[in-house]
Amino acid sequence: MSLKGRHVIDPNDLTLEEIQEVVDLGLKIYSNPSAYAEICKGKILGTLFYEASTRTRLSFESAMLRLGGSILGFSDASTTSVKKGETIADTIRVMDDYADILVMRHPREGAPKLASQYATVPLINGGDGGHQHPTQTLTDLITIKHYKGEIKNLKVALCGDLLFGRTVHSLLKTLSRYEGMKFILISPPELKVPYHLKNEILENYDVEIVETNCLETHMPEIDLLYMTRIQKERFFNEEDYVKLKDSYIVNRDKLQNAKEDMLILHPLPRVNEINYDVDTDPRGKYFEQARLGIYVRMALIALLTGVIEVC
Amino acid sequence: MSLKGRHVIDPNDLTLEEIQEVVDLGLKIYSNPSAYAEICKGKILGTLFYEASTRTRLSFESAMLRLGGSILGFSDASTTSVKKGETIADTIRVMDDYADILVMRHPREGAPKLASQYATVPLINGGDGGHQHPTQTLTDLITIKHYKGEIKNLKVALCGDLLFGRTVHSLLKTLSRYEGMKFILISPPELKVPYHLKNEILENYDVEIVETNCLETHMPEIDLLYMTRIQKERFFNEEDYVKLKDSYIVNRDKLQNAKEDMLILHPLPRVNEINYDVDTDPRGKYFEQARLGIYVRMALIALLTGVIEVC
Amino acid sequence: MSLKGRHVIDPNDLTLEEIQEVVDLGLKIYSNPSAYAEICKGKILGTLFYEASTRTRLSFESAMLRLGGSILGFSDASTTSVKKGETIADTIRVMDDYADILVMRHPREGAPKLASQYATVPLINGGDGGHQHPTQTLTDLITIKHYKGEIKNLKVALCGDLLFGRTVHSLLKTLSRYEGMKFILISPPELKVPYHLKNEILENYDVEIVETNCLETHMPEIDLLYMTRIQKERFFNEEDYVKLKDSYIVNRDKLQNAKEDMLILHPLPRVNEINYDVDTDPRGKYFEQARLGIYVRMALIALLTGVIEVC
Repeated sequence: MSLKGRHVIDPNDLTLEEIQEVVDLGLKIYSNPSAYAEICKGKILGTLFYEASTRTRLSFESAMLRLGGSILGFSDASTTSVKKGETIADTIRVMDDYADILVMRHPREGAPKLASQYATVPLINGGDGGHQHPTQTLTDLITIKHYKGEIKNLKVALCGDLLFGRTVHSLLKTLSRYEGMKFILISPPELKVPYHLKNEILENYDVEIVETNCLETHMPEIDLLYMTRIQKERFFNEEDYVKLKDSYIVNRDKLQNAKEDMLILHPLPRVNEINYDVDTDPRGKYFEQARLGIYVRMALIALLTGVIEVC
Repeated sequence: MSLKGRHVIDPNDLTLEEIQEVVDLGLKIYSNPSAYAEICKGKILGTLFYEASTRTRLSFESAMLRLGGSILGFSDASTTSVKKGETIADTIRVMDDYADILVMRHPREGAPKLASQYATVPLINGGDGGHQHPTQTLTDLITIKHYKGEIKNLKVALCGDLLFGRTVHSLLKTLSRYEGMKFILISPPELKVPYHLKNEILENYDVEIVETNCLETHMPEIDLLYMTRIQKERFFNEEDYVKLKDSYIVNRDKLQNAKEDMLILHPLPRVNEINYDVDTDPRGKYFEQARLGIYVRMALIALLTGVIEVC
Repeated sequence: MSLKGRHVIDPNDLTLEEIQEVVDLGLKIYSNPSAYAEICKGKILGTLFYEASTRTRLSFESAMLRLGGSILGFSDASTTSVKKGETIADTIRVMDDYADILVMRHPREGAPKLASQYATVPLINGGDGGHQHPTQTLTDLITIKHYKGEIKNLKVALCGDLLFGRTVHSLLKTLSRYEGMKFILISPPELKVPYHLKNEILENYDVEIVETNCLETHMPEIDLLYMTRIQKERFFNEEDYVKLKDSYIVNRDKLQNAKEDMLILHPLPRVNEINYDVDTDPRGKYFEQARLGIYVRMALIALLTGVIEVC
């Protein structure tokens, strides 16, 4: 089934084959970008950002420009007709004439899903509240594929705020669909993965899950360490925060027992959960991850607009 | 007379022949856009929006991109040198170097007119306060031409807030210049077309005008129904508002006695003055109208920059 | 030494030969822009404006578009990850993937310098606080070269707020490096050039400096009159302001004794320090200066990205 004309709202709207298609095309473009430098000539990407997110917006815009296309849009809602009482449905029915493909970021969960029901051009969810952010998950996947060769039989540690972290939930669900995955979920007790999500995954997929509050004891067995920010205000009391915060900071010291080929990722921006001394460690690939995110978005744009149709 | 290098501030700056030129070119582009996809290559459109208007801005930007040109600009005044005390004249003398054609939106009436006196490149008024908005009028005209074949001998109903509605005033004045036009002006008594405007039209043009507060009784004779928003705060008292508001909402029910080929337009955004059940009625063409607005802007840009010169 | 891949943070990072290279290429492009209309095809300029500056941003964007490249970026910091606590170093390590060359404007002195230490693509300082603004200096230089033929043996008057004026400090330092320069520094006593800057220049360069509070007496000998804004709030008391302000306004009257070929420049925006009656005087070239600023930026972009390498 072709991806041409499809909307991408939830990473799990895509089959594993479709994800592979996007990731593989992303890596092909990455290895030879000039071959794709004009394939979107004459196409317009519309960026509808009802909530500011410079990084996501610029990554998409860079992707479209690097395919030879053009961009237009807005970067925060304050300049739109929302305040005049217009519905999302009406807005999208107008906006979809301005562009050949749309990315929508919205503070309200479900808004991109609703919008996609009215859009006559492909619409990509660029993040909706604490809900979905499919191109972050695709970014994570292309990075794993690039550095690990295959997404298979990996021991994946997700570390930090696993309760509120949208990125982590999406990644966890999507990785569960791959063969032989084992998860180590590392967080303070208050910030564990929601019970219903853990249950859903254990019921539907053949995975192993270990929950712990200690990163260091598991370090030697981890293939992929996925770090996320812990916001101080998520803790119930200051004492807990002070006690725990250092456990969730990776530094060179803690990496001494880690595998040589362990991969450290982070959706960025980081605050202090990865020490700067890790930046020069060959295992820290979070900046490469951000770069690969451009290429996976190029692939997605190329496939949804139909300028490339993988058979 | 060629439109090359001209400014467009007021729709009535254009002769009927010039309007026809723009509208006809817009329809030609609409029917074969790929033939025009590169005619503005190397040209830059500057969007100077001293007041936010995402819809108008993006429509212009899409138009320029679809002609193969580029865009730059700003979407609200807060980021400009206005606050440093610079005059519009000075600003424009700098800005007109950055682009080959400018669109200016400004909260102050007359600002685009003033700016055009200093601009060395064509300047289009993208809306100035409650004053003029010529490309909305051109959008209305291209839609009428497209669906009616000719702008001639039409019974046009303008419905809603006819006192403050800039769009309606422009359209009324411009349509009056065409042959055989009859107007039914439908509004609450408090929101009638300003007396001076009505008089000006009756004195200068050979038209018929009927004023009424009732949409339904006139429905069967209307060729074009142009709906606009009524803002609650325009009413003098709550009681009037409650009594009248439903009369100015079109729905399927009220359309039962309407002509088969009646055209329903709206400058958008709508709030509730057109019921959603009208969206699927073949007479409701307000979203097509927004789409045609891109093409008429493409035509205007092509003619003002001189990349196309109609003889 | 080639400029390819270099950062430009301080105008004095460039040798006089390099400045000449940029200025000469700027003038070549100015005299034949169409020959350069596609040289940056496929290249992206990223505009990172942590502080609004529409004029500088649009000048850079116009420059890149006129070279056939593309643009992306943001126009104020409110939409960035700064508020999430991300460091400039991290931000730049992500942003430098989105574009092939970056311009950064930042309210904090030194921020672009810091950023350049992490950027893998050329980074241009678009102004940092009251510190440096190298492309304004290059704009001044290309204008002098264009109208004077050579930057040599000139009597240059800098007039207005010489204490806080970033533009003036940069220009003063850079012009001091040229042969045979004499400066007349005209300001109220409270707003004189900082003592350390004057000393630094006198110690390092072979220049003459005269300080005065009177523009009129020096008028007949000036080759280049560089005006700047004086903000009322810079004065210690209202009385001084009222007494002095008119002395620092140029008008036709005061120009009667000026040389025929004197050049009047201003970094813009002006408020009232140059009377409007000077706009039509052939000596007033401040709007031409703004235009030439686009071409010197085109030259800089072409040289830093390496699409043109002057031998």
